[in-house]
Amino acid sequence: MKQKIPVGILGATGTVGQRFVERLADHPWFELAAVAASDRSQGKSYAEASRWRLPSPLPERVAAMTVSAAAEAMPCRIVFSALDAATARQLEPECARRGQFVFSNASAHRMDEDVPLVIPEINAGSLSLVPHQQRRRGWTGAIVTNANCSTIFLAMALAPLKESFGLEQVFVTTMQAVSGAGYPGVPSLDILGNVVPDIPEEGVKIERETRKILGRTLGDSVEPGGFAVSAMTYRVAVEDGHTESVSVRLSRPASASEVESAWRDFRGPGEVAALPSAPERPVIYLPEAHRPQPRRDVDMFDGMATLVGGLKPCAVLHWKFTALGHNTVRGAAGASVLNAEYAAARGLLD
Amino acid sequence: MKQKIPVGILGATGTVGQRFVERLADHPWFELAAVAASDRSQGKSYAEASRWRLPSPLPERVAAMTVSAAAEAMPCRIVFSALDAATARQLEPECARRGQFVFSNASAHRMDEDVPLVIPEINAGSLSLVPHQQRRRGWTGAIVTNANCSTIFLAMALAPLKESFGLEQVFVTTMQAVSGAGYPGVPSLDILGNVVPDIPEEGVKIERETRKILGRTLGDSVEPGGFAVSAMTYRVAVEDGHTESVSVRLSRPASASEVESAWRDFRGPGEVAALPSAPERPVIYLPEAHRPQPRRDVDMFDGMATLVGGLKPCAVLHWKFTALGHNTVRGAAGASVLNAEYAAARGLLD
Amino acid sequence: MKQKIPVGILGATGTVGQRFVERLADHPWFELAAVAASDRSQGKSYAEASRWRLPSPLPERVAAMTVSAAAEAMPCRIVFSALDAATARQLEPECARRGQFVFSNASAHRMDEDVPLVIPEINAGSLSLVPHQQRRRGWTGAIVTNANCSTIFLAMALAPLKESFGLEQVFVTTMQAVSGAGYPGVPSLDILGNVVPDIPEEGVKIERETRKILGRTLGDSVEPGGFAVSAMTYRVAVEDGHTESVSVRLSRPASASEVESAWRDFRGPGEVAALPSAPERPVIYLPEAHRPQPRRDVDMFDGMATLVGGLKPCAVLHWKFTALGHNTVRGAAGASVLNAEYAAARGLLD
Amino acid sequence: MKQKIPVGILGATGTVGQRFVERLADHPWFELAAVAASDRSQGKSYAEASRWRLPSPLPERVAAMTVSAAAEAMPCRIVFSALDAATARQLEPECARRGQFVFSNASAHRMDEDVPLVIPEINAGSLSLVPHQQRRRGWTGAIVTNANCSTIFLAMALAPLKESFGLEQVFVTTMQAVSGAGYPGVPSLDILGNVVPDIPEEGVKIERETRKILGRTLGDSVEPGGFAVSAMTYRVAVEDGHTESVSVRLSRPASASEVESAWRDFRGPGEVAALPSAPERPVIYLPEAHRPQPRRDVDMFDGMATLVGGLKPCAVLHWKFTALGHNTVRGAAGASVLNAEYAAARGLLD
Repeated sequence: MKQKIPVGILGATGTVGQRFVERLADHPWFELAAVAASDRSQGKSYAEASRWRLPSPLPERVAAMTVSAAAEAMPCRIVFSALDAATARQLEPECARRGQFVFSNASAHRMDEDVPLVIPEINAGSLSLVPHQQRRRGWTGAIVTNANCSTIFLAMALAPLKESFGLEQVFVTTMQAVSGAGYPGVPSLDILGNVVPDIPEEGVKIERETRKILGRTLGDSVEPGGFAVSAMTYRVAVEDGHTESVSVRLSRPASASEVESAWRDFRGPGEVAALPSAPERPVIYLPEAHRPQPRRDVDMFDGMATLVGGLKPCAVLHWKFTALGHNTVRGAAGASVLNAEYAAARGLLD
Repeated sequence: MKQKIPVGILGATGTVGQRFVERLADHPWFELAAVAASDRSQGKSYAEASRWRLPSPLPERVAAMTVSAAAEAMPCRIVFSALDAATARQLEPECARRGQFVFSNASAHRMDEDVPLVIPEINAGSLSLVPHQQRRRGWTGAIVTNANCSTIFLAMALAPLKESFGLEQVFVTTMQAVSGAGYPGVPSLDILGNVVPDIPEEGVKIERETRKILGRTLGDSVEPGGFAVSAMTYRVAVEDGHTESVSVRLSRPASASEVESAWRDFRGPGEVAALPSAPERPVIYLPEAHRPQPRRDVDMFDGMATLVGGLKPCAVLHWKFTALGHNTVRGAAGASVLNAEYAAARGLLD
Repeated sequence: MKQKIPVGILGATGTVGQRFVERLADHPWFELAAVAASDRSQGKSYAEASRWRLPSPLPERVAAMTVSAAAEAMPCRIVFSALDAATARQLEPECARRGQFVFSNASAHRMDEDVPLVIPEINAGSLSLVPHQQRRRGWTGAIVTNANCSTIFLAMALAPLKESFGLEQVFVTTMQAVSGAGYPGVPSLDILGNVVPDIPEEGVKIERETRKILGRTLGDSVEPGGFAVSAMTYRVAVEDGHTESVSVRLSRPASASEVESAWRDFRGPGEVAALPSAPERPVIYLPEAHRPQPRRDVDMFDGMATLVGGLKPCAVLHWKFTALGHNTVRGAAGASVLNAEYAAARGLLD
Repeated sequence: MKQKIPVGILGATGTVGQRFVERLADHPWFELAAVAASDRSQGKSYAEASRWRLPSPLPERVAAMTVSAAAEAMPCRIVFSALDAATARQLEPECARRGQFVFSNASAHRMDEDVPLVIPEINAGSLSLVPHQQRRRGWTGAIVTNANCSTIFLAMALAPLKESFGLEQVFVTTMQAVSGAGYPGVPSLDILGNVVPDIPEEGVKIERETRKILGRTLGDSVEPGGFAVSAMTYRVAVEDGHTESVSVRLSRPASASEVESAWRDFRGPGEVAALPSAPERPVIYLPEAHRPQPRRDVDMFDGMATLVGGLKPCAVLHWKFTALGHNTVRGAAGASVLNAEYAAARGLLD
């Protein structure tokens, strides 16, 4: 058995940071070697600093680890970043300059033209931007990003349709869980029995990132997908799981059963399917009425699947349906970890 | 002062029935003279049969009224109907045959070609179907309906846009309150911390009714509006207030300030604005970010207003925004009462 | 008509501060002349600084007022304080030294032996501590406090029992609304679908304050009530309204109907009942099963009543029942305003 | 390997019935051979009849099983009953007469003097009532019951205290999850943002059953524990997990660390600890502040543990604390299964 690769987490105490810990504490390839957070947490044990909030128990080994400051160098080849955008903008390049591979959930560099925005089932090839990024920036490490939580499930639901039928227009309304805003995040007074429109910056991220992920990698940059995306975003009183109402216009007509088959048959590259964090199938079509629902379906395949259901003809575009995924797992920490696994499997980190 | 018109309520004990009671107990023109419900309630006091669930106190006079069976003739010129569709299909025509004017919230007859589907601010003129209905069916009374709760706020938000700019396409995703399903209605196990897609029959109602309301009354029938509507519907953990994510393509371009002005300036006919239940303004544009929200805004103008906000350009159609209204007030009982007020003011009931 | 007394609010932008504004904006005796908050808000309009969150509209006159810093002297004889304990400890004495009467919802001085802790229906006489307080501290103003939100409803439910039957032991478990923790307050991730035990410091406050309120004022101090109180506290996913499960041992036996009569007949002094903010009756016994409930009953008598219900024999003590009240109205801002009205009516402020 | 014992479930489609299926589908000793429900479900597949609502996937083998009518004889030595009380009163004796062992979660026979009410960690010996029951009733089978959901966690938290220090008085206030009311159960309109006092019959069950479980089996009946129990019950907006605020008077003084040790050291008989469904430890004391909480802690040890925390001195009795458990697992289906495992291990079913 190969030796495990030491990895660290930036922003390890927050909502996404805790999901990173959960998924890395017992990882077959990676060894969680360092946890870093804001200065306030520095020097504390992870147990004390994190005030662990996940239902799964805090792994004992991690509980005892000492939290270092985020700005300090961690002794790891791989760094997972759950930093907020502003801090990420500053610290992630420092890591990459030092020779670390940063797998980042932060939005800071997602749209940089030489930074891969990766969902390996869809655009694993975009990792070919890494050498361009290194050359251009003079780094020995690199930054690799995953998309915004809402974007990932949308892109995953759209990828099979684009591949099979082409894609012209996408309209999406999201109903997003409170865990997406971190902790303390959404005040209970704002959301109990309520729906809050227009999550700040979320709509724009969905519109831009979906087109980059479903675009074409051309040498040292990505040409965005040639389809229009319009997103409206809402916060709802759900703990985990973003629900999306989606309508699409395809480039050529497709029947309901063709659309469902496209989802059912979608696999992504075989080498992705073999990764430790990869879901059995990336997209699951639920044929039952009134599905998917966040409380019932969000943990399917360990939170790594994208669920779709309720396919119906759309009187304005072509087809409409509901998509759903676990926003802090497949939509955040799990996505970064899968990207790192893919990069490791491809020898990119050697 | 004129004598008040005696009115009755069919289905008086349910969620919408209670709203009827609340709005009629102290009405300036109408005198609540009879409350009817299913056989199970017959002969009980209204207090006992209704298990009153509204936050406002049950009016004492009504509490003491005896509930009659829905099938019995009530001694009233006006009957308000909160019946389910199947019962309405059977009982409402009997009332109309007897000479009663039925103002119905039930879906049973909304799409009948000789039955007015009325939002008086928008299509008061459709009451001209009544004499055709009476002639054709040999009735001395009539059935006048209001739309499905979600349809009303959508139609109200669209009417000023259609009037000013013309309307081509509408995409709407609803996030609907549990009170819309009546009582006991939605089991708590289904909705706590959850979102449930595809409320049965709701999408189709929204699509058809919106086009009838925004259509043209031509002699003895209505030509539906010549625009496409696509609706997706979701139930959320909100008590009162349906939130709608709406996107529209207009017939001619309009700037944001033109759209906002169209809403702000929309009034409906002056005789409607003067009715006792009419809101000060039918459509309120809220300029603040993250509005409207059901818990904060649903009771504005006594629950009779339609709130819109968050106008933004849409990358697929033209403009997108959020609409909101109180589903059991303006979306149900309040809508029927306003229709009856209008009919009374126009002398239709004389 | 007498001229209105100018009043100011310290901590005017928070959850309780907004309730103060709501209740003072149109008060028959008081004129809201100044709003103060933390330095961060200084110089902003109240509308901007407060981000108004109540369902009632922000009064226009107040919206336009400029927020001053809390440490600045306000030109008012009466100051209402919604400060946190630490700030109150520092600023309230400065106000009193300046000659202002501080009616405070803060916990900082409640248990000071020369500071009245007042529920006017119960212990109006404790205002006689004011001259002692002034003499002892060399102040021309004074500090008058109301109790912790949970304490007020408990004390109100107990006062008629103590008066009629004597009181030996009290056991209370609270289920408290999130608005009691202010804004942003309780993170939604902590409370959605959850119950959180042991609100910090709450149990101790309830135990001590209840005994002070139901004690005897003896010259310059208060002898606490000679009964034991044990409190356990829980946060629940309710917006407004603290529910309390209470069990009591009385000094002499009482039948259920005697207990209910004690509540029904309880009035407090006539001069209190005549105050503008006084509820029609301080304690309302609801005979219906499964009442009181926060969502249905919290707004009764404008949020100023204490509701009790579900009286049953207790196998350990004597009687057990449920009590409920509006935590930010009768349990906070409304309590302070009522205290000030009483002081004004008694000529204490002249 | 021994052959598995065929078992059936009465009331298999409801909330508790589904938990039975979940725990029996892959049981090491039992083979789920039959599922029965009301006539309405008869002849349908279990998948169709149950409308599976648990987050775990419906086991495929069970999905395809045909639901029989509850009144029909099932070909099983063991029958698990999730029937309502009225149906249980009628059908369970028929099963026992036929020679089946009924492990019942229904309340119908719990207080019958010859029916064991069992928590095996506490009163495994009460199974000695079975031969008396068989003789007296002329049955070859028997009825064995588990307690009401709230009772189980209370009895479990009290048992170590009674054993170590003796028990005099118990006061408990429950905050119960909606799943305890079954499906459809609690209407969302009743519980969203609300607390509802006085769950029907619940308080009385807790008071009686706790004393029977912690009583002494004397030949052919049980002498109830000689301590007083007073229970108040509330429904809260929680999906799974009953939280209980408990205060106790012990027979002899005990320090906090003695109480905590009593819980920590409590194990029950070794043969119980070895059963497949037994939790690692029956009672877990959580030392962290603000614990246990239903959403975080309910699934500990697969939902079979009782969690306690927040131990504090009580000013009225001696000690107070919070207890919590999973109401449909350890509080219902899991309890019945554990009882059956114990009976099988003891050779009672041979």
